Amino acid sequence: LPSELDPGAVGEMSIIVIDAIRATTSISTALAAGAARVVPVQSPVEALERAGEIPGALACGERNGLPPKGFDLGNSPDAYVPERVAGRTLVFTTSNGTAAMFRAADAQALRLACFRNLGAVAAAVAREVREGAGTRSIGILCAGRRGRVSMDDAWCAGHLVGRLVAAVPGLRLADGARAARLLALGLGLPRADGLADTDAGRALGGVGLIEDLEACARLDDLEVVPVWRSGAFVAVGEERG
Amino acid sequence: LPSELDPGAVGEMSIIVIDAIRATTSISTALAAGAARVVPVQSPVEALERAGEIPGALACGERNGLPPKGFDLGNSPDAYVPERVAGRTLVFTTSNGTAAMFRAADAQALRLACFRNLGAVAAAVAREVREGAGTRSIGILCAGRRGRVSMDDAWCAGHLVGRLVAAVPGLRLADGARAARLLALGLGLPRADGLADTDAGRALGGVGLIEDLEACARLDDLEVVPVWRSGAFVAVGEERG
Repeated sequence: LPSELDPGAVGEMSIIVIDAIRATTSISTALAAGAARVVPVQSPVEALERAGEIPGALACGERNGLPPKGFDLGNSPDAYVPERVAGRTLVFTTSNGTAAMFRAADAQALRLACFRNLGAVAAAVAREVREGAGTRSIGILCAGRRGRVSMDDAWCAGHLVGRLVAAVPGLRLADGARAARLLALGLGLPRADGLADTDAGRALGGVGLIEDLEACARLDDLEVVPVWRSGAFVAVGEERG
Repeated sequence: LPSELDPGAVGEMSIIVIDAIRATTSISTALAAGAARVVPVQSPVEALERAGEIPGALACGERNGLPPKGFDLGNSPDAYVPERVAGRTLVFTTSNGTAAMFRAADAQALRLACFRNLGAVAAAVAREVREGAGTRSIGILCAGRRGRVSMDDAWCAGHLVGRLVAAVPGLRLADGARAARLLALGLGLPRADGLADTDAGRALGGVGLIEDLEACARLDDLEVVPVWRSGAFVAVGEERG
């Protein structure tokens, strides 16, 4: 959780932020659809201001699950299609996801993961370790919900731990990583109905967006890895190899 | 985790604190052995001061796993025998456990749980709910380790969730509770070797106290429920019914 992150240690860490329902799924989808960059901001007001300053930029994201007034796009992954986002800057704010990203902004490397790009993220982290970029500590930061652990993020994190164990030799797991991995073994592969049965899934159903979970539950259909570069997430693909 | 607790909501909650390795195991053991009360304090200095003010009181607990200088007892559950503690006040401080207890001090009801008294705690909470004491929200607070989730506490919490589901009709589980329950299903019943394979267990091994885990892994052999009453934990037994 963001509250578990030691600010003094962030600079030495390689951090992966997960907000499976829905911020990291939407951002990964947007970059895969050709968005030029995704700029996270703290508030809807800031999103509108920043988007107004950048030619062609779109204000994107949610509060209480829905797009704030004046926004171009909400936080539904399937809305991020090439026709809407290709080549554009997306200014993005969500209730939990963007706050977690800012907590990790000073990390040695900062990536975003969701079920859709788990394999690509694990490959990218494994390559970073293999190339000896000094990575001693890998942190998986679950955005959670209102500061508390959320099942969707922990489920996704557990699968990521499994991938990392397979891809990174000599990895030692902290208790939280082992707990997430056991959770994921218990829950199995992602399913939309399983995601619906979480606090975040129920909240999404409450605002009539339950169909978004179909996209959140897709596994490994994207090769894109959103990577933090001077204030924005950009697509780094073809990192596998 | 303590950081997940909403201070504004604590007053409406019934909270159970778990620090399975070892604070809540030691305190439950001490009260079962006849200690009159256990007074948690923040620091070793404060423990020595307070113990010096109360006739017959003992300074108990740990820093870095070991009893601080001048302490009467450390944090090894099996050291809390009737010959040492019966009728006495224990002033108690540990690295993670006592801080979690203070976070929950304003709860409507505050109890301590460990593997040894899980059944007794679940029965006490079920009775509180049945008697309509206004309990709307039950919180299981895992002390964790340095602010992070620890496997031993989550394992114990998951078994407590299972007991509560059986004992409290109509319970709805938040994501964290469900995640802990799934974790406990994966890990099974407590075992000393399983506890040894956690961050807290390894730290305990590092200071030569791995044998303490035998006591921490005992299941349901105590009927005592430590309950918070005006600044101290006291034994409430025979709460089952």
